[in-house]
Amino acid sequence: MAGKLTDDDLIPVAGGGLLHRRLFLGGGLVLAVAQTATSLRAEDAPRPHTEDPADPSWLHQTGLPFSGYGTPSRYEKRVVRNTGGNRSPAGDGVSWTPLQELEGIVTPSGLHFERHHDGVPDIDPNVHRLVIHGLVQQPLEFTVSDLLRYPMISRFLFIECGGNSNAGWHEEPIQRPVGDFHGLVSCSEWTGVPLSILLDEAGVDGKASWVIAEGADAGLLNVSLPLAKLKEDAFVALYENGERVRPENGYPLRLIVPGWEGITHVKWLRRLHVTDAPAMTRNETAKYTELLPSGKARMFTFVMDAKSLITSPSPGQKMHGANVYEIRGLAWSGRGRIAKVDVSADGGKSWAEAHLQEPVLSQCFTRFRSAWKWDGKPALLKSRATDETGYVQPERDVLVSERGREGYFHFNGIVCWAVDEDGTISHVYA
Amino acid sequence: MAGKLTDDDLIPVAGGGLLHRRLFLGGGLVLAVAQTATSLRAEDAPRPHTEDPADPSWLHQTGLPFSGYGTPSRYEKRVVRNTGGNRSPAGDGVSWTPLQELEGIVTPSGLHFERHHDGVPDIDPNVHRLVIHGLVQQPLEFTVSDLLRYPMISRFLFIECGGNSNAGWHEEPIQRPVGDFHGLVSCSEWTGVPLSILLDEAGVDGKASWVIAEGADAGLLNVSLPLAKLKEDAFVALYENGERVRPENGYPLRLIVPGWEGITHVKWLRRLHVTDAPAMTRNETAKYTELLPSGKARMFTFVMDAKSLITSPSPGQKMHGANVYEIRGLAWSGRGRIAKVDVSADGGKSWAEAHLQEPVLSQCFTRFRSAWKWDGKPALLKSRATDETGYVQPERDVLVSERGREGYFHFNGIVCWAVDEDGTISHVYA
Repeated sequence: MAGKLTDDDLIPVAGGGLLHRRLFLGGGLVLAVAQTATSLRAEDAPRPHTEDPADPSWLHQTGLPFSGYGTPSRYEKRVVRNTGGNRSPAGDGVSWTPLQELEGIVTPSGLHFERHHDGVPDIDPNVHRLVIHGLVQQPLEFTVSDLLRYPMISRFLFIECGGNSNAGWHEEPIQRPVGDFHGLVSCSEWTGVPLSILLDEAGVDGKASWVIAEGADAGLLNVSLPLAKLKEDAFVALYENGERVRPENGYPLRLIVPGWEGITHVKWLRRLHVTDAPAMTRNETAKYTELLPSGKARMFTFVMDAKSLITSPSPGQKMHGANVYEIRGLAWSGRGRIAKVDVSADGGKSWAEAHLQEPVLSQCFTRFRSAWKWDGKPALLKSRATDETGYVQPERDVLVSERGREGYFHFNGIVCWAVDEDGTISHVYA
Repeated sequence: MAGKLTDDDLIPVAGGGLLHRRLFLGGGLVLAVAQTATSLRAEDAPRPHTEDPADPSWLHQTGLPFSGYGTPSRYEKRVVRNTGGNRSPAGDGVSWTPLQELEGIVTPSGLHFERHHDGVPDIDPNVHRLVIHGLVQQPLEFTVSDLLRYPMISRFLFIECGGNSNAGWHEEPIQRPVGDFHGLVSCSEWTGVPLSILLDEAGVDGKASWVIAEGADAGLLNVSLPLAKLKEDAFVALYENGERVRPENGYPLRLIVPGWEGITHVKWLRRLHVTDAPAMTRNETAKYTELLPSGKARMFTFVMDAKSLITSPSPGQKMHGANVYEIRGLAWSGRGRIAKVDVSADGGKSWAEAHLQEPVLSQCFTRFRSAWKWDGKPALLKSRATDETGYVQPERDVLVSERGREGYFHFNGIVCWAVDEDGTISHVYA
């Protein structure tokens, strides 16, 4: 038990043992997990130097050499993207970010989720061109070298597939690790050229109101985007997490549309066709569109609403007996900053405000943490995000009643993890 | 030329053509690089779909498959750490982060600089232990699994080797790319357990004032650190940029000591020996200590002072003729946030304040940008960082006169890039 841990620090502020977030504030955390470390007896106290041949080999032998480009430890091989979804036609599917294995707010680029329709094009950046054409005074063609010379901006931003968490619409709660349920969302530092500069250079016609953005994959995937949003804050990314964008994330150029659904972030960007109406392509009519109970359809639902989920403890993990735990999770909103995250241990009857890890950035992952004294009895864990516009993440039943049973996209309802007496954790509708 | 670019926006605010940072503020950048894009003639205007067999293969063929863990494009193979320094004994040396190839503030973990004394130990996390012993009420031993259960914090922090940029002390200016001169500094999001919690659990004796931190490499590298700093803000990192720490960065545990020189961030952390005096080991006496002109020595110079450098344009790169350029660079300070960065194009006769990319975080890289209208004549580029304590990065000659000719560590003087009429860029003392 930590020296500074007092009874006052452990007075629950909500049902089921949730503790006050002041435990995370001020002069350091005073909370500790009780009795986790092993006490050493005097005869086991460390020797000043280790010359015992029974000690691990790395204490005696010179290690591995320097490397040009590092990779994760061979003991972390389980931490990969899980590939799934459609496997036919070839190249059509997804891979999920293993959110339950990660911490902080940055997703390593090698684990950024994938959603491809025709595989990953192996693009030569010396051949690739970006063209801006249509309702412009002067059509322009940019090489990658050209774009590297323009002024740039950097932003930490999440990208979330419009179809992320779609199992949330199922009749029965899916039992999978968090990443395989919610992992079509990732967060990176993106750097590139504001689209407003490039559009200004081309000289956009006053009649223009939409832009058809097209990628250089074999299917020439395209989406229609309102011109106003592109001029407001979209940019053409050349860098992700410091280095050039990875092939599966759009190398050499990816359109970034902050806060909007993943498909608008067109990878391998090659064309921006300025026009006065949406193209009404397959991916904005047959897909990424939903029938409502009223018989009307939701279309062009670009913005990703506020959402949160608990990554630890979470399904597939196991509790280690009654103790103090840190509940960890992620929250994000396409409409701005996360204002607060509430956490419940009694299925939503009572809530405690979680601590938000700084920096809290707009349209970016926010890591939240909450202290929880689990008594070893059954518990129901939930998190609920509120963003700076006042929007509150809805309970699942409210979302389902609004959207109806045809829902497939934009599931952002509150999810619930049931903790059993034996420490197992499962996904429940509660 | 961009449509919104007016003469007013291009009035220099300092010698040599430096423009006002308001170009980067408000409703989007209006600055553009003149005539960089290629205008398309009507007959070259894009076709709606590409079925021309002369087009690149990736527009016709399904791309590469999904991957469990992604890697950079094969066209980016030049972007690696450059290994150098001592090659004997084996495992003793450095590898530099290629800063001139990177953007934003995150360093990809695979490109984080290395400084090893005995190579990279290949540690089994199930075998590794962290022991806290010495002047404590109860010596404790932690497994990695134990530590994963403690409360965590995340911070974006730079780590800089105390010997970074040591060529700055040379009599003649070294001619190398920025990364090979200054690249023993990198910046990551680190997540781990505050050391204050672990020390509290062990119960530190009132007589204690120092801690000897030891790593699990073959040389059992150790350093002495003041207890007060460790209790203030140090932590034991398990994650770097979202995933578990890479082997060459300390897997499975690295001590993070915000703002302090690299060697204090002990990799492969295995022992924290609480004591009442520094150990006076080789790495804090023969090394990382400097003789001053007075005959006294600088020791335990832990904090990395404010520093900045221009990564583009920089030596080894080439200008593309008279035009508007974006000057890009990095600034950081071990004492807190960067307050401002000034840029000069006339060798320091006049200065213009650069735009700082948000978020500006304490003890973290800050990316700065400045607009520069180069007239094609010789120019001398410099940057100068000021941190929130008011500390101003010194000119090189001031630093050398203070520290004398025995300097090897902690070079943070202003560096100067000379731009020639033919567009070549070199490092000069000016």
